[in-house]
Amino acid sequence: MALKAIRSGVRNETGIVEAIAALKARFGERLQTGQAIRAQHAHTTTYIPAQLPDGVVFPENSAEVQAIVGIARENGVPLIPFGTGSSLEGHVNAPHGGISLDMSRMNRVLSVNESDLDCTVEPGITREDLNRDLRATGLFFPIDPGANASIGGMASTRASGTNAVRYGTMRENVLAVTAVIADGREIRTAHRARKSSAGYDLTRLFVGAEGTLGVLTSVTLRLHGIPETIAGGVCAFPDVGAACNAVILTIQSGIPVARIELLDETQVKASNAYSGLHLPEMPTLFVEFHGSPESVALQSSAFAEIVEAFGGGAFSWTSNADERAVLWKARHDAYWAQKALRPDFAMLSTDVCVPISRFADCVEATREDIRENGLIAPIVGHAGDGNFHVGLLFDDKDPAFVDRAEAFVERLNARALAMDGTCTGEHGIGQGKMPFLEAELGDALDLMRQVKLAIDPTGIFNPGKIFTR
Amino acid sequence: MALKAIRSGVRNETGIVEAIAALKARFGERLQTGQAIRAQHAHTTTYIPAQLPDGVVFPENSAEVQAIVGIARENGVPLIPFGTGSSLEGHVNAPHGGISLDMSRMNRVLSVNESDLDCTVEPGITREDLNRDLRATGLFFPIDPGANASIGGMASTRASGTNAVRYGTMRENVLAVTAVIADGREIRTAHRARKSSAGYDLTRLFVGAEGTLGVLTSVTLRLHGIPETIAGGVCAFPDVGAACNAVILTIQSGIPVARIELLDETQVKASNAYSGLHLPEMPTLFVEFHGSPESVALQSSAFAEIVEAFGGGAFSWTSNADERAVLWKARHDAYWAQKALRPDFAMLSTDVCVPISRFADCVEATREDIRENGLIAPIVGHAGDGNFHVGLLFDDKDPAFVDRAEAFVERLNARALAMDGTCTGEHGIGQGKMPFLEAELGDALDLMRQVKLAIDPTGIFNPGKIFTR
Repeated sequence: MALKAIRSGVRNETGIVEAIAALKARFGERLQTGQAIRAQHAHTTTYIPAQLPDGVVFPENSAEVQAIVGIARENGVPLIPFGTGSSLEGHVNAPHGGISLDMSRMNRVLSVNESDLDCTVEPGITREDLNRDLRATGLFFPIDPGANASIGGMASTRASGTNAVRYGTMRENVLAVTAVIADGREIRTAHRARKSSAGYDLTRLFVGAEGTLGVLTSVTLRLHGIPETIAGGVCAFPDVGAACNAVILTIQSGIPVARIELLDETQVKASNAYSGLHLPEMPTLFVEFHGSPESVALQSSAFAEIVEAFGGGAFSWTSNADERAVLWKARHDAYWAQKALRPDFAMLSTDVCVPISRFADCVEATREDIRENGLIAPIVGHAGDGNFHVGLLFDDKDPAFVDRAEAFVERLNARALAMDGTCTGEHGIGQGKMPFLEAELGDALDLMRQVKLAIDPTGIFNPGKIFTR
Repeated sequence: MALKAIRSGVRNETGIVEAIAALKARFGERLQTGQAIRAQHAHTTTYIPAQLPDGVVFPENSAEVQAIVGIARENGVPLIPFGTGSSLEGHVNAPHGGISLDMSRMNRVLSVNESDLDCTVEPGITREDLNRDLRATGLFFPIDPGANASIGGMASTRASGTNAVRYGTMRENVLAVTAVIADGREIRTAHRARKSSAGYDLTRLFVGAEGTLGVLTSVTLRLHGIPETIAGGVCAFPDVGAACNAVILTIQSGIPVARIELLDETQVKASNAYSGLHLPEMPTLFVEFHGSPESVALQSSAFAEIVEAFGGGAFSWTSNADERAVLWKARHDAYWAQKALRPDFAMLSTDVCVPISRFADCVEATREDIRENGLIAPIVGHAGDGNFHVGLLFDDKDPAFVDRAEAFVERLNARALAMDGTCTGEHGIGQGKMPFLEAELGDALDLMRQVKLAIDPTGIFNPGKIFTR
């Protein structure tokens, strides 16, 4: 299982010392080796123990990234690209040591093409900063994984989140990237046309590669018009199955819901306490509709009919921005609300995703598992995509409890795979999901390995992630 | 330029003889070597001279594909996967000889998951057969490149067509594939969840790979609900610029138009003659809206306002299925209508795609080029994607005319690339676009080569395509 499978790795001590010296000479104070900053660059919201890099470097442009890649390559030292550290599966750990490449100073908006609904940004910009920057254009970048992640990190984990049911994931919303590859060249994967049949889809190869194929230096994103009307609402259901089935029918009916989030009663309880909501402690859907006033009204009434059919409570919606903000702030804070249920415990936040028809089955079987094993584990999900998260609270100082937590995660993943689902809908593989990826893809994983070896022959880019061997 | 750049290739004569013998022993009459059938498997609607395979084999299941791949690998002989032969850029030619793998007997629907809006099919099924099969479910597969192509071929060229502006391309609508790779294993690239962050995006790697990485044995597709209402219409504009600008504003306004096709006046003339239409010989848009009756009415009236703003003629729309069918039959026959303008000439059908804001500029500059050079070359385009086709009629027996045709294509591609566009929006690279791919992607092409070498180390899969070296 994940926690145990993470190898300590073999450190290239000489190379590391020489790389640090070369980086120090070139970058001065922009190469940091203090314990605190190194710990901060391995620390994420993950349950996986931190493995610190040996240094952290802060490049400011592509040429500097190229220089860093050159130093790493010459000395055979790992490079771990770092965005904001909101990863949940140990992506930014340094199991073999090496250099964390903090991209936060490469955070400029390079161009906005309003008339083409696209923009090109440096990878270190966060999604909230980007949207602040875009506000005057009437456009926005919809992908919203909850955390204020960096665009480079989101591209690298193929992030999605609440809006994906309507706007797609990073897979659909990255038009092109530039990246510095192992030999130091900066390549561009595509031009700005909305579609292309020009050879292999290198853009999609870098999206989701978790920094294992090169260092992103820019990302070209598809933008969307800020909807004329946004309306949202909340609705409680008698049981989780009813809530899930309402979601399934909403998707099958083709209602273009922008967000449709499931919170089970444990999550509602946690969010009431943490975010000061006053929702009934019942399985609940948070929904949002985008469009013209007429279209939003049509969507809302079609949805209300479905809610009624599944015995949901009165569904009321509002286009009042402040009321919606409270709701979505609470949704974004779900992670912290979960943690606050047992501040003395560690939390293992994990996700799986199944075909929508199996969503109710998978959530219900998982809740049964939680009950049977006496675990505290709220469930919150991007229901419209068949994707849900479990925030498992466990005592990481009690080895027996750790075993129980790991066994639960194994069962969860096996359950999702048996339903033709995936071991991760949006968190990525990192270190935590490595064994499940093997179970999911079998021989296809060899193809990924071949691609990795071909593009990064010396293995300097984020080693010890995705692949167990 | 393309026509001249295609190398004759080096044939492995011994290997070919031995592979043919082994295939004959295994497949009997399902291995054909007659001239006519070989010519038919190199002949496509391309302008590129045919290069015949040495034999054509008709597998009926994955195990047979695995056996064929084994024979090809052991004898070092090229394998060229063949769908329906509707390729436009020489994808099914055999520049080094080898075996054409005709997938037409692998044309079953393996499963339809109505509740998940997906299905899995064998690659040889055509899109029309698939949609006929799906009719009772209320679902359809929207991707429509015009020709009744096979799903495997469409996946392999990342096809799109008229509906892509609303439903996306094969990139967005293939959920997973199975493929037989060079070592003979059959791999599956993904499970059926709507989204996944589980490692490299192998699905998107095979989509658009043009059969150069393996042989597809199944394709899992995203399906869509047949819209409650479909309404379409035709609208003439005073000039091409006005028509293009109406398209640009439609897209920028976020009107979810399902189809928006530009025909320039030469194309309208050709389609009037070939398809018995009676349209004014002016630049024209064919449009279609999908949705509820209310939503279609909203879309249509929003579009009508835009048409008026750009001086378009009266825009009338109809939801009468027969009237729409006449229109779209004519649109699908555009290729044949173009050819009929000069039956004594050859036709070079090519496509480029630019960011939507440059669509008017690119089309107008191309028309100016056509006029200046006294060429006959109707333009028809998937305008909403910034994608257009030129059907250049030329005398392939006159070397000077061939040179003029090639020089025109070079300028067309250079123009699209200079506008941050791509040398092919949907036809693929094949043989015809190889030099332009290099111009488009530069060093990134090396990454594609590395991937190709890693996955197909002996180069048996469709050699002489995509890569000039």
